[in-house]
Amino acid sequence: MIISNPINIRYLTNIQAEGVLLITRKDNIYITDSRYIESVNSALTVDDGIMVYDTRNLTIDDYENFFLFCNSVGFEENYVTYAKYKEYIHKYKIENIVETENMIEGHRVIKENNEIKKIKTACEITDKCFKHLLTFIKKGMTEKQIAVEIETYFKLNGAEDISFSPIVASGINSSMPHAIPTDKKIESGDIITIDMGCKYDGYCSDMTRTIFVDYIPEKQKKIYDLVLKNQLSTLEQLKDGANIKTICSQVQNSFEFNKFMLIHALGHGVGLTLHEGPILSTTNNQFLRENMVVTNEPGIYLPGNFGVRIEDTILITKNGCITLTNSEKNYIII
Amino acid sequence: MIISNPINIRYLTNIQAEGVLLITRKDNIYITDSRYIESVNSALTVDDGIMVYDTRNLTIDDYENFFLFCNSVGFEENYVTYAKYKEYIHKYKIENIVETENMIEGHRVIKENNEIKKIKTACEITDKCFKHLLTFIKKGMTEKQIAVEIETYFKLNGAEDISFSPIVASGINSSMPHAIPTDKKIESGDIITIDMGCKYDGYCSDMTRTIFVDYIPEKQKKIYDLVLKNQLSTLEQLKDGANIKTICSQVQNSFEFNKFMLIHALGHGVGLTLHEGPILSTTNNQFLRENMVVTNEPGIYLPGNFGVRIEDTILITKNGCITLTNSEKNYIII
Repeated sequence: MIISNPINIRYLTNIQAEGVLLITRKDNIYITDSRYIESVNSALTVDDGIMVYDTRNLTIDDYENFFLFCNSVGFEENYVTYAKYKEYIHKYKIENIVETENMIEGHRVIKENNEIKKIKTACEITDKCFKHLLTFIKKGMTEKQIAVEIETYFKLNGAEDISFSPIVASGINSSMPHAIPTDKKIESGDIITIDMGCKYDGYCSDMTRTIFVDYIPEKQKKIYDLVLKNQLSTLEQLKDGANIKTICSQVQNSFEFNKFMLIHALGHGVGLTLHEGPILSTTNNQFLRENMVVTNEPGIYLPGNFGVRIEDTILITKNGCITLTNSEKNYIII
Repeated sequence: MIISNPINIRYLTNIQAEGVLLITRKDNIYITDSRYIESVNSALTVDDGIMVYDTRNLTIDDYENFFLFCNSVGFEENYVTYAKYKEYIHKYKIENIVETENMIEGHRVIKENNEIKKIKTACEITDKCFKHLLTFIKKGMTEKQIAVEIETYFKLNGAEDISFSPIVASGINSSMPHAIPTDKKIESGDIITIDMGCKYDGYCSDMTRTIFVDYIPEKQKKIYDLVLKNQLSTLEQLKDGANIKTICSQVQNSFEFNKFMLIHALGHGVGLTLHEGPILSTTNNQFLRENMVVTNEPGIYLPGNFGVRIEDTILITKNGCITLTNSEKNYIII
């Protein structure tokens, strides 16, 4: 098999570089270029059983010999571009190339203990960041300033990186689920949606809170209550064996009963990437499994008006679930 | 043609979202999901001539009708995964799918005036950031703290974003061209490589400077001089019509004459992405053209010891070139 997705390579080997991993009949081989040779060699030990090659030292024959006695060679059809797919066939002289259908991603969906520990730590740092923000945010600051503060906090307080560019959307901007922070200043009466997460040793966290400035307008309160009610009722249903479609449909029905819509998925898996399997949507008929880590993030958006989203990162257990992000979800007025 | 690469979509339409752009015989169509409908509609005017569809409102028949009378449909083989390629053929019922061979990327290589203006602004912000760093960096600070300061400076001083995670590599860490900032503290006698860039209205800058702490060890001085000499002699040769291979080979020869190696490309194109065409390497036999924007970044790396890289973003002109990043390149001792 040829593994090209750097996330899958990291999952299997802990290597963080640009290159491909070949699992051949004889050897495990990592091919990279001269820029990364030093750091890759220092990340591996003899026990890893991985041979590292520099592209400069490989001949056409070398490439053709790697899979010489293999009946078929697997590749990641959801990562490899069509151009690369053709290049692989030619370069490695592959007679029978086979789609591996998310083989490694399938493993990644169920988290091992050491992975859960890392996600937990990322979530703890996220909670601490939120606590910090509640004293940091002041009227007159811009959304951008708050977003930069989030990044700085994460990077100087134990996180390796952000898991995505934080969303800080205030007032009317909160009606866009994927708003980009602007120079708009925080004002009295604003609602602020803060969606943020960090990475700890490669593993992501993801949390959203919606807070209020000075007071809570009646219409916002009503929608906040509805979103929170659905976030909490979903929590009660997340457990090993639960049907994803059923859970998502309940939220959709509750929203529609109140004349609103669920315009995005209820959640997604979280791990080495921010978005991975399983997707929590009304069209996914799969079942939750113990040690999956997923988000639970219902949201309602009124275009040109405002939006509310509340999101936690959740560990699925045998009999229920454990909320890994634990910041306050009752009304927060700053 | 089906355009899937968000950078190419932004280049053509200014839309920043998740979706695909279809150029059909009749219409220009952008298909996105409910999360982005509001922001896409607000980014477009009637003059753009683009119809926006929500995936939720499209039927199987709609997809099959988009390219109904087209003999062939182009797609981006260097962006689209093998799985998506198969999905497109099925979904749009395409009989003859054609690789477009970097059609749009080819246009992107030669910058228009409004694009050059944006890159220039990104470079100016980068120079200002470097000036700020020279007063900010103190012994005892960690590489990470400096990297976070770079990001914060960019985001609060006119840049839309960083163009890549800044590299701050001090002492022995500087021997890795792609070092990730660590908790190592800046010490007397350190060499510090700072590679950074920002985005202004989508367009990137890229600059590297190597500076010294307290004094310059003799061995470092010798290598700094050699790298700078090659960076400056390259500048003299960059112009419309110059052969890329020839320029890169001269640097390679100069390094090898001194018993060092050029282990990475001499440079790369810069635009809406940090790395784009043309690649400045000893195997690229193409010629530079007026209004290309490229980096010029020779570097020497001594594993386990230290490294030196000096890089500017450069605009190619009819008779020469214009350096868009203008920070000091003579010895800087802090």
